[in-house]
Formats: sequence, structure tokens, C-alpha cells
Amino acid sequence: MKVLIVHAHPEPKSFCSALKDLTAETFRQNGHEVQISDLYATKFNPIGGAHDFKKAANSDYFKYQSEQVNAYQNDLYAEDLKAEMDKLVSADIVIFSFPLWWFGLPAILKGWVDRVFAMGFAYGTGKGVYDTGVFKGKKSMAIFTTGGPEVAYGEKGKNGTIEQTLFPINHGMLYFVGMSVIEPFIAYSPARLSDEERKKLLEKLKSKIENIEKEKIIYG
Amino acid sequence: MKVLIVHAHPEPKSFCSALKDLTAETFRQNGHEVQISDLYATKFNPIGGAHDFKKAANSDYFKYQSEQVNAYQNDLYAEDLKAEMDKLVSADIVIFSFPLWWFGLPAILKGWVDRVFAMGFAYGTGKGVYDTGVFKGKKSMAIFTTGGPEVAYGEKGKNGTIEQTLFPINHGMLYFVGMSVIEPFIAYSPARLSDEERKKLLEKLKSKIENIEKEKIIYG
Repeated sequence: MKVLIVHAHPEPKSFCSALKDLTAETFRQNGHEVQISDLYATKFNPIGGAHDFKKAANSDYFKYQSEQVNAYQNDLYAEDLKAEMDKLVSADIVIFSFPLWWFGLPAILKGWVDRVFAMGFAYGTGKGVYDTGVFKGKKSMAIFTTGGPEVAYGEKGKNGTIEQTLFPINHGMLYFVGMSVIEPFIAYSPARLSDEERKKLLEKLKSKIENIEKEKIIYG
Repeated sequence: MKVLIVHAHPEPKSFCSALKDLTAETFRQNGHEVQISDLYATKFNPIGGAHDFKKAANSDYFKYQSEQVNAYQNDLYAEDLKAEMDKLVSADIVIFSFPLWWFGLPAILKGWVDRVFAMGFAYGTGKGVYDTGVFKGKKSMAIFTTGGPEVAYGEKGKNGTIEQTLFPINHGMLYFVGMSVIEPFIAYSPARLSDEERKKLLEKLKSKIENIEKEKIIYG
């Protein structure tokens, strides 16, 4: 399998980055090919705008989705976007690796979605969504850390359930473009755990990656 | 009242930007003071990282929340952040104005939240959250446009309900820091509407802003 890990953490020595490293290593050990888009390391620009395109269809009035479609039809996506799109197209499984910030993706990863999941390329122009989406056949999964403890995201948690928080990511982004979504791997509040507990989490992740083919699909 | 509008759209002539302009104008006509953070116009940097701080507490290992707390305690937030924090502190009502991209805030606005709602400043260090949050007493509201039509976000809509989509924004961001959240103003799919229908939406928004004190609170 070809694996794409889109990773968004500012500290390479963080536990979140260790989860990414272990994911990549485990996939490779099991014979899979891994590409990593390390968004902080490559200073990925997350701001969707006119720079997404080599040339605008209408330089007087910027209409993002229309320009995305025009770029798709006329091969005008900027090089940084094309590189990410090519990686996405070739991947059999796409992993989002991040710390949960404000109940969602860090801006640098949200912007990767805003720009790379472009209309024309990822949906629209007659293409389907969800079960008939462009990337049907691919799998996807979120691997993330949280600040708050698990109980805060439970049925009676003050933050609402983790499923509520993840709905826009799992359903609205990954499943929208047709990918099957594997149950996420969540490391709750690693900053408050002991080394032993963190080690257990790493083992749990390794096992999840080794058995990825059998993992539960929650959408798609 | 003091109003802060945080606006995120790349095109000043868009319908989304027209909603922001009308909001500002109506508040001013009714005697309120309005500040606008126009994130695209000012090229706001949405990437949370070491540049958020004048000086790091630990330059060998970047731990975002710890640095945020340290910056709060030692007056070390970068100038661009301090300017936004000052606007937020002085506001009685905070408006997020944006196009709904991928079931959430455009990255440039998500990054405003990631950086400005800093630990120490907006929560943490003994401060409460939700009903005891730092910004209790302030009101907040989302004003946004969508690509998809209203039916796609209804009870049987393929996208899930709009409430599901908005949960991380209304509950996870605005209410988390203590603000009361007013029912959002949603312009569904303005690109597909007639001029007459768009005019009606503008009238509806104007009336909502004029009667903002009586508007329904959905959280807080």
C-alpha cells in the first residue's frame, strides 16, 4: 500500500510527532510505501487564495471555487498544491496527524484541506461526494493528541462527545471526498501521562497500524 | 457597545464581505463602535508557533500551551497577537464573518483562534471555561455563507445538520471561553440566488443586527 501522512505539529520532538514517526516506521516495516507531508517543516502556506493558481480566470473578482475549477480544467494549480494533490491521488491510505486545537485541525492542516481538496479536483464538475466521491477506494484515519482528558469528551463530558468534535473532519472532509474513514487513534492528554502510560499508547498505535486492514470503518 | 468583527474572505467584493460591511454599517448607525480584523487584508499569519512569542521559555523544546502561559505571565506575546487580544478584551460582542469552508472556519480564521485564544490569556492558569469562562458577559455570533443549499444541512441532509457542523465553533471556541453565543446568521448558497433573494438576505441581516439585544442565545 501507499501511505500519505499529513502531519501538523510545530515540535519534531513532541509526543504527537512521535506518533507520526511510529506510524511511518510501522507501515514501512510491514512493506508499505510512506510519504510524509510535514506541514510545519515545509512551511506549508495554509491560506487559500489567488496564489493557489498560476493564472486567474478572473483577476478582477476572486471567486475561489470557480478558480479551482478553472485551474483543474486548464492545469493551473500552483506547484505546491500540485505536489500535494499528486501525493493524495497516489495514496491508498491518508493519515491526518495533529494535535487537536480548538476542537479541530490546527490552521496549517485545515488550510491543507481548504487548498488541496479543491473543487474540480476533489469534487464538483459532475463528480460525486460521499459514497460516490472521487477518492472512493482510499482509506483515511485521524491520529491525534488532546489537551483535555478522555472524560471531558465522553457522553457527559463538558466538551461534548469526541464524535461531535470529529464530525466535520471525519464526515465533512475525509468521507465527503469518498474515502472510507477508519476509527481514529486518540492519545488523550499525553502531557499528563507517565512514561509507562505513553509507552502503552505507542504499543497500541503500533498494533493498530499493523492490523490496519482489519480496523473498523466508521464512514464509507 | 463595542463590536469586534473578525472577517476572513479573500474577495472584498464578495457577498460574504458585503454581509460584513452591512453588519459594521448597521452597528455604527445604531450608535455602536466597530472594529474590524480583516484577516486577508492584513495578511494575518494563522500558523501557531514560536513566532507567537517575543522570547521562548524553552527554545529547545517547543510546547505551545506552556509558551502561551509563559508569555501571558511575562508579557511576551508578539505584537500582532497582542493587538488582536486587546481588541477581543475591549469588545462586548465578537462576530466571526466567513465563508464555510470544509465544514469549518477558513484556515486563516481557525489560526486566529489557535493563536489569540491562548492558554493563560483565554483559559487555563486557574481560569474557568464555559459558564465561568474568561469572556463571560461578552456575546458572540457567526455570520457565514455556504456553498451547499440549506436542504443539504437539514435533518435529512447528506451533510449532517448545520448544528453538527457548527458545534466546534459555537460550543468549542466561542462558548468555551465564556461568551454567550447568538444564533448564527447563515446565507445558504448565495452564489445560486437571484439579486432579489440576496437583497432579502441583506434585509434579514440588517434586522438581526438592529435587534441584536433580543436575539436568541444558543449557548451560555
